[in-house]
Amino acid sequence: MNRIQLINRIKATGSYLCVGLDTDITKLPKHLKGTPNAVFEFNKAIIDATKDYCVCYKINTAFYEAQGLKGWEAMEQTVNYIPATHFTIADAKRGDIGNTSDQYAKAFFEVMNFDAITVAPYMGEDSVRPFLQYEDKWAIVLGLTSNKGSADFQRIPVGASQRPLYETVLDTISEWGTPNNLMYVVGATQASDLKHIRNLIPNHFLLVPGVGFQGGSLAEVSHYGMTKDCGLLVNASRAIIFASDKEDFAEAAQQVAKEYQSEMQEYLQKII
Amino acid sequence: MNRIQLINRIKATGSYLCVGLDTDITKLPKHLKGTPNAVFEFNKAIIDATKDYCVCYKINTAFYEAQGLKGWEAMEQTVNYIPATHFTIADAKRGDIGNTSDQYAKAFFEVMNFDAITVAPYMGEDSVRPFLQYEDKWAIVLGLTSNKGSADFQRIPVGASQRPLYETVLDTISEWGTPNNLMYVVGATQASDLKHIRNLIPNHFLLVPGVGFQGGSLAEVSHYGMTKDCGLLVNASRAIIFASDKEDFAEAAQQVAKEYQSEMQEYLQKII
Repeated sequence: MNRIQLINRIKATGSYLCVGLDTDITKLPKHLKGTPNAVFEFNKAIIDATKDYCVCYKINTAFYEAQGLKGWEAMEQTVNYIPATHFTIADAKRGDIGNTSDQYAKAFFEVMNFDAITVAPYMGEDSVRPFLQYEDKWAIVLGLTSNKGSADFQRIPVGASQRPLYETVLDTISEWGTPNNLMYVVGATQASDLKHIRNLIPNHFLLVPGVGFQGGSLAEVSHYGMTKDCGLLVNASRAIIFASDKEDFAEAAQQVAKEYQSEMQEYLQKII
Repeated sequence: MNRIQLINRIKATGSYLCVGLDTDITKLPKHLKGTPNAVFEFNKAIIDATKDYCVCYKINTAFYEAQGLKGWEAMEQTVNYIPATHFTIADAKRGDIGNTSDQYAKAFFEVMNFDAITVAPYMGEDSVRPFLQYEDKWAIVLGLTSNKGSADFQRIPVGASQRPLYETVLDTISEWGTPNNLMYVVGATQASDLKHIRNLIPNHFLLVPGVGFQGGSLAEVSHYGMTKDCGLLVNASRAIIFASDKEDFAEAAQQVAKEYQSEMQEYLQKII
């Protein structure tokens, strides 16, 4: 999916919500636990219930890999089930030397048909470039993440200017791609950071996790992060998919997704 | 496998060779291409042929993921096939917020029985810790990698001292684990770096890629990197597994592994 298509979809849906399918098998509703293909059945119900209120699904590969072969199969089934109208992200945090990143790109862009993959920047240019060479596909590189550990390296001062490392990462990587094939992960937990980051990279889409369970505020994220093209994909995972652990899990997920969408529609009024 | 067992194995084998199973399906010998389960059959033959000359196998997950479900199955079969005497590394470069790294640890340490996994440090402490909490399992964190892109971030000067980032990474992460559950990836392409790094972290094992195709010298790596406990796992992938693309691929792999082992045995004389 290209940038124009994504922006149009956001405007048509009145939503920049990304539903995170961090499908932890231990948290499935009791009636699904132990049934064959429980993860895919759960995801299918979540997708059916939320697709009118979101523009994107993000599959966190760890939760699938932790189920072995069966999990990998559920991931393939899930990405195939997501409607072509929706942007799909493999939240895989991959990145390795060139010939190896080539293989990861093949895995997520060719064998599976994801639109985007999250990428870790530590290994530099040749580890990121392979993900930027597919038409209408995206690399979403870690900028400033929402976890406590982000302070350990991302915020340490670097170079003569003593700016935090994550700023150098944003600057440097922006030279390797364009706002048409490159996004950044920027955590929502501190809104002042988002304001600052939006100044540094005014045109790139940001994938913003950390709203909901991790404490970020949708209002602040939208206020500081939104551009004339929206420029935001705000992810919520547990807050939506595990809104209920009973048989009504899909309806409960729909209700939460709908609330997000309704709030987002308001904020989108400014740019439509 | 714990540190003592690994050291004993190195001394008994006269080798600190790690064979990298970067099994690129397009490079398989012609007679195997297109056969059912070609990747596992190839790996099996390579393992049978090289196991007397190495102490470790490293599976590069990207090459398996690029084959989809069938590839993940070949990875599981391969790690199960590797003799329990040998140290096994999932070269997966994972790392994410705590609850997600938990799942990756489960995938590679429980569902599959790897001894170690390579981990990317950018997301900080909570992204690394889950891999340090298994008895006799190891996190191998990226320190200084062997690729060109390592200059982009790993070598930029940070903090008041303006030391390169990778030094801060080594220092900081050393506080989270011990030489009994933590190793580092240190590329072999510049021997002077290795000397310097060995001074910074005198006790940790280093996983050293980049010998062979990437241009590093085994003599220099051993000279600068070896400790009284050896402290090195030197990886060669393509140089061994694709030594021949004909029916004699396993014999050719054995020959190259044997040459490495023979050279390593010499260097090990100093510490045995």
